[in-house]
Amino acid sequence: MNYTFSDKMEALQPSAIREILKATADPKIISFAAGNPAPEAFPCEAIEKITAEILTKNPIGALQYSISEGYPPLRDALRELCRTRYGVIGENDDLIIVSGAQQGIDLVCKCLCNEGDTIIVEAPSFVGALNTMRSYNANLVGVEMDDDGINIEKLEEALKTSPNVKLMYLIPNFQNPSGITMSYEKRKAVYELAKQYGVIILEDNPYGDLRFRGETIPSIKTLDTDGLVVYCGSFSKVLSPGLRVGYLVADKGLMGKIVVAKQCTDVHTTILSQMICERFLAEYDFEEHVQGLRDIYRKKCALMISEIDQNFSPNVAHTDPDGGLFLWCTLPEGSDMPGFCKRAVEHGVAMVPGNAFTAKASDPTFSFRMNFSTPTDEKIVEGCRILGQLTKEMF
Amino acid sequence: MNYTFSDKMEALQPSAIREILKATADPKIISFAAGNPAPEAFPCEAIEKITAEILTKNPIGALQYSISEGYPPLRDALRELCRTRYGVIGENDDLIIVSGAQQGIDLVCKCLCNEGDTIIVEAPSFVGALNTMRSYNANLVGVEMDDDGINIEKLEEALKTSPNVKLMYLIPNFQNPSGITMSYEKRKAVYELAKQYGVIILEDNPYGDLRFRGETIPSIKTLDTDGLVVYCGSFSKVLSPGLRVGYLVADKGLMGKIVVAKQCTDVHTTILSQMICERFLAEYDFEEHVQGLRDIYRKKCALMISEIDQNFSPNVAHTDPDGGLFLWCTLPEGSDMPGFCKRAVEHGVAMVPGNAFTAKASDPTFSFRMNFSTPTDEKIVEGCRILGQLTKEMF
Repeated sequence: MNYTFSDKMEALQPSAIREILKATADPKIISFAAGNPAPEAFPCEAIEKITAEILTKNPIGALQYSISEGYPPLRDALRELCRTRYGVIGENDDLIIVSGAQQGIDLVCKCLCNEGDTIIVEAPSFVGALNTMRSYNANLVGVEMDDDGINIEKLEEALKTSPNVKLMYLIPNFQNPSGITMSYEKRKAVYELAKQYGVIILEDNPYGDLRFRGETIPSIKTLDTDGLVVYCGSFSKVLSPGLRVGYLVADKGLMGKIVVAKQCTDVHTTILSQMICERFLAEYDFEEHVQGLRDIYRKKCALMISEIDQNFSPNVAHTDPDGGLFLWCTLPEGSDMPGFCKRAVEHGVAMVPGNAFTAKASDPTFSFRMNFSTPTDEKIVEGCRILGQLTKEMF
Repeated sequence: MNYTFSDKMEALQPSAIREILKATADPKIISFAAGNPAPEAFPCEAIEKITAEILTKNPIGALQYSISEGYPPLRDALRELCRTRYGVIGENDDLIIVSGAQQGIDLVCKCLCNEGDTIIVEAPSFVGALNTMRSYNANLVGVEMDDDGINIEKLEEALKTSPNVKLMYLIPNFQNPSGITMSYEKRKAVYELAKQYGVIILEDNPYGDLRFRGETIPSIKTLDTDGLVVYCGSFSKVLSPGLRVGYLVADKGLMGKIVVAKQCTDVHTTILSQMICERFLAEYDFEEHVQGLRDIYRKKCALMISEIDQNFSPNVAHTDPDGGLFLWCTLPEGSDMPGFCKRAVEHGVAMVPGNAFTAKASDPTFSFRMNFSTPTDEKIVEGCRILGQLTKEMF
């Protein structure tokens, strides 16, 4: 049978990264293509102990239906964390649990965007978010980034000239894929533009706790006096992505609708996962835990940069992130970037070609994303040497 | 700030049931309004043991990112179950894991329906599904049911006269909310109509294993030679709803798109939940387990029916389900059903008013849904006596 799909889904293709990851299931391939936490970043024993406790003390609570807004003790704990640690929850805000930040992005797009409405994104931006936006037939407009975040002049231009702008999607800390962090000045400027043009900001902050250098910069949400910012947090990079637990903070007037959308999507997030996150926050020292993660990623990032600097052609540029999981390499303008990525796989190393992250697949890019959290140190060294040789041959 | 929501979400209200459940959090209220498995239906010790094993033997596997299609060993186990136990997977079909059947419904609607397209549903039907369809701005057309399932003449009439029919949503076994089971003859007739009109059937079967009387009737999917039926199964009623694990079986040509939609929604279903389901199927006797559930619900249903027959006004009709969790009571035509439900709550008993389950809230109904799986036997007796007194006063 020939199926007729909805207009919004008709053209949508699987995430390029997830397809690359399937191709790199071959253990001989060194993959810099993933975005997984390092295996040593999981507090396995703690989770084992917590989970046993939950299933001994309150098995029915963990296995029965629950409410769409989320497990109340976890919501309370996160409200507290959002108040004291992140400063991202105000008097008029509410917080709900979502099935990973991906679902948070999905629900916000669904609630705010009609087909054809514009969503402004950083160029490049997170492919998972872009695909969700495409699945609502949104018009994606990418705005170039400088070293300190989105270009404000070009952002204003996009706000002025794009039809029905409903949302700006931003990852201010150690952005995926670029590794760039938005300066405080730019955060303020972005917020002022949102206010001026009446556009909601979706601030995605999965990596915020993974700052391994420099001072924390307050989130855009800390500036939000007008209910314009939806803040999205996640346990995926600081505890476990497999548990699928994230959260949204937004003005109550917006959150009411988001909860209805959540109800229609999966009723509620896995309750055992929520209980594990709650107990982890209650029984363990979260700050000490994330300090440990920062140590892991600081070393891995430094190793990858050092190997790039020693081995790559000097004509290949790279970002120098203050945190997160990724860095972004750029070949000389006019280079055959897809051809380079293809040759790299043939030589046993996979990265993600930059066009996976552009608002339109045809937008020109000479960059590719390198992940330093998943590969072992040995693989980082070996993979960078292979890539270095290739860059010297080609550029 | 006054938020402008998308057209599809603008008018959508929270599920009436979930709002009633919040109102009935008062432990003094006897609630026949829920749809939760009985507390004694959970194999708590087994899940505790399985989970400990998983987190000891393969913690990283349980906590790391996984693939959107689902945990491969669970998909294999379910393919086998769908082949041997349910007969619902053919050569051209594939199976994916979803975050509860609710997400299955969501993904199918998203992939197939543009705003304004028609979805035909049974009248009454599952409110969670109706709200998901509303969240895509579908045109819902309810078709009356007879004692043996949807009225075929009226179904054909709806297929002929409704604009852009893309989907028929059917719950053939112990339907929620009516408790009605569709006869095999009607399943065949429905399939023939789907073929004739080129419309996809979404067959939702969350209660199929909970048949406590009579012979199993083959699913509509067993008749599917043309790739027209998407079959939706779930662990929610046979293992645990809190784990949020369901599955879809559909033709590969359709499934490819559903997987893309899944990726955009929550990346993948909680992997620990999937591993628990897989181990339960591998290490325990599933048939023996569901036999135990059937015994629980057979007794509870019989008790509720006996109490209704002894206590209710003879002018109140009720269905006599062969399985599942619900029965459906109907007041004399012209009765003030919402007024009756309101008085019942004032007297300490909650049910779900029938208009929660109609395609349009204004569709007339004199019925209400009674759940027998969640309340204790004592509450069933006490609640039915209170309702009985009221029905005798009012009808």
